[in-house]
Amino acid sequence: MGFILRRNELAEHEVHTTPLDIIGADTQGSIGYMISQGLRNEFRQRGIDKSIASIVTQVVVDREDPGFHNPTKGIGGFSTEEKAREFEKGGWQVIEDAGRGWRRVIASPIPIKIVELDAIQTLVDNNFVVIAVGGGGIPVIEDSAGVLEGTRAVIDKDRATSLLAQALKADLFLISTAVSKVALNFNQPDQMWLDRMSVEEARGYLTEGHFMPGSMGPKIEAALSFLDAHPNGKVVITDPPNIARSLDNKDGTWIEA
Amino acid sequence: MGFILRRNELAEHEVHTTPLDIIGADTQGSIGYMISQGLRNEFRQRGIDKSIASIVTQVVVDREDPGFHNPTKGIGGFSTEEKAREFEKGGWQVIEDAGRGWRRVIASPIPIKIVELDAIQTLVDNNFVVIAVGGGGIPVIEDSAGVLEGTRAVIDKDRATSLLAQALKADLFLISTAVSKVALNFNQPDQMWLDRMSVEEARGYLTEGHFMPGSMGPKIEAALSFLDAHPNGKVVITDPPNIARSLDNKDGTWIEA
Repeated sequence: MGFILRRNELAEHEVHTTPLDIIGADTQGSIGYMISQGLRNEFRQRGIDKSIASIVTQVVVDREDPGFHNPTKGIGGFSTEEKAREFEKGGWQVIEDAGRGWRRVIASPIPIKIVELDAIQTLVDNNFVVIAVGGGGIPVIEDSAGVLEGTRAVIDKDRATSLLAQALKADLFLISTAVSKVALNFNQPDQMWLDRMSVEEARGYLTEGHFMPGSMGPKIEAALSFLDAHPNGKVVITDPPNIARSLDNKDGTWIEA
Repeated sequence: MGFILRRNELAEHEVHTTPLDIIGADTQGSIGYMISQGLRNEFRQRGIDKSIASIVTQVVVDREDPGFHNPTKGIGGFSTEEKAREFEKGGWQVIEDAGRGWRRVIASPIPIKIVELDAIQTLVDNNFVVIAVGGGGIPVIEDSAGVLEGTRAVIDKDRATSLLAQALKADLFLISTAVSKVALNFNQPDQMWLDRMSVEEARGYLTEGHFMPGSMGPKIEAALSFLDAHPNGKVVITDPPNIARSLDNKDGTWIEA
């Protein structure tokens, strides 16, 4: 989204700009396409006969979400105060970021409902691999009549994916990230990789501050929220090269009730 | 696509550019989102309980399609010869366009196969309104092993939609365009609006040159190709304000076998 937003800005003297929900939707199209094509090609080469579909996904958030009053997620590059004040006139909220310059900030509201859930469910029931909720989903607010409207926000990907896993009653919620396992005392001399955690242990470690906000924290929260809704489900957190080994119980951090 | 391509160019000193298949996929995301949301809101306000899904769609074209050797479809703005030669170094074909300046041209190959047809069919069978094959589809070529790769082309929307209507065995193929009916001698003093045409009549008028290439011509060709595959199907051509009246047989041009 950052690249498309920046292109919008650099071209605004000649081409109209597009709002942030549209930019998010753009990325669902192109990234959905790339993942879908890549997976399909891999399936073909391995003789796996499985179809793939990428669904443009809207996710409903609450217009009263406290995140909208105190947005914290930086987006776009740093700029001068003058440029920031221009963005402000365009309806953005801006902050001065610890001496690094001015920056726009947006809300990261809690995802409430996946609009295209029924389509995703129908395709999953029919044995499709479905790519959905890209980038956390296109954030929309819903009025009392059920009418949707895009809003300027970014939904946390882990939260949105957890919501999808809950809604689909998934057996396994796999979170692919930058490390092959979760660690206690991450990056400290006494760092300890975890093979498995119970829900209670994970909640305890989270409270003790082992998992950084904006990093492993939201993933553990997403895992817990899934397991609270589906106590018989399982979660595994690992990185892409070790997904297969993790599914064979040889890597990753498993979380179960 | 033109706007996104132009933003790419205007920002290329700072942000990487993206290839044309990715740009097409971007537009499927954002336009799919807008149509989907707009339709859903309209359905809600009218009490229609129907779900909508927008599918990112790849369409296979033949790498030997003659269109690739002689591309004719202009894309992007006009430029100097110097700039055009730069594009040429980047793999584009360029032409000098009748004194208006230099321009890139791309192929408009024939669509052969809709990759996500099974997902579209599954959703249609389950009563969804499906938005698919946006912009004619993301053009891909397929090798002998079934591996797909994006290609620099634009697929004609009418041809791609006709292919989809054929594959779905649609009862009705509705082509929404800029005029409420098809005319003979369009824009001439003896212009005559048509309420209906048989396949034979349509083919005759097409041969006689009544339907302009790049305008009504491809729509009539798309209609004929649909009706050749489905002689029991029907085609109606009209404009958005008159779709409802056309479905009531009060407007539009109907084509039947």
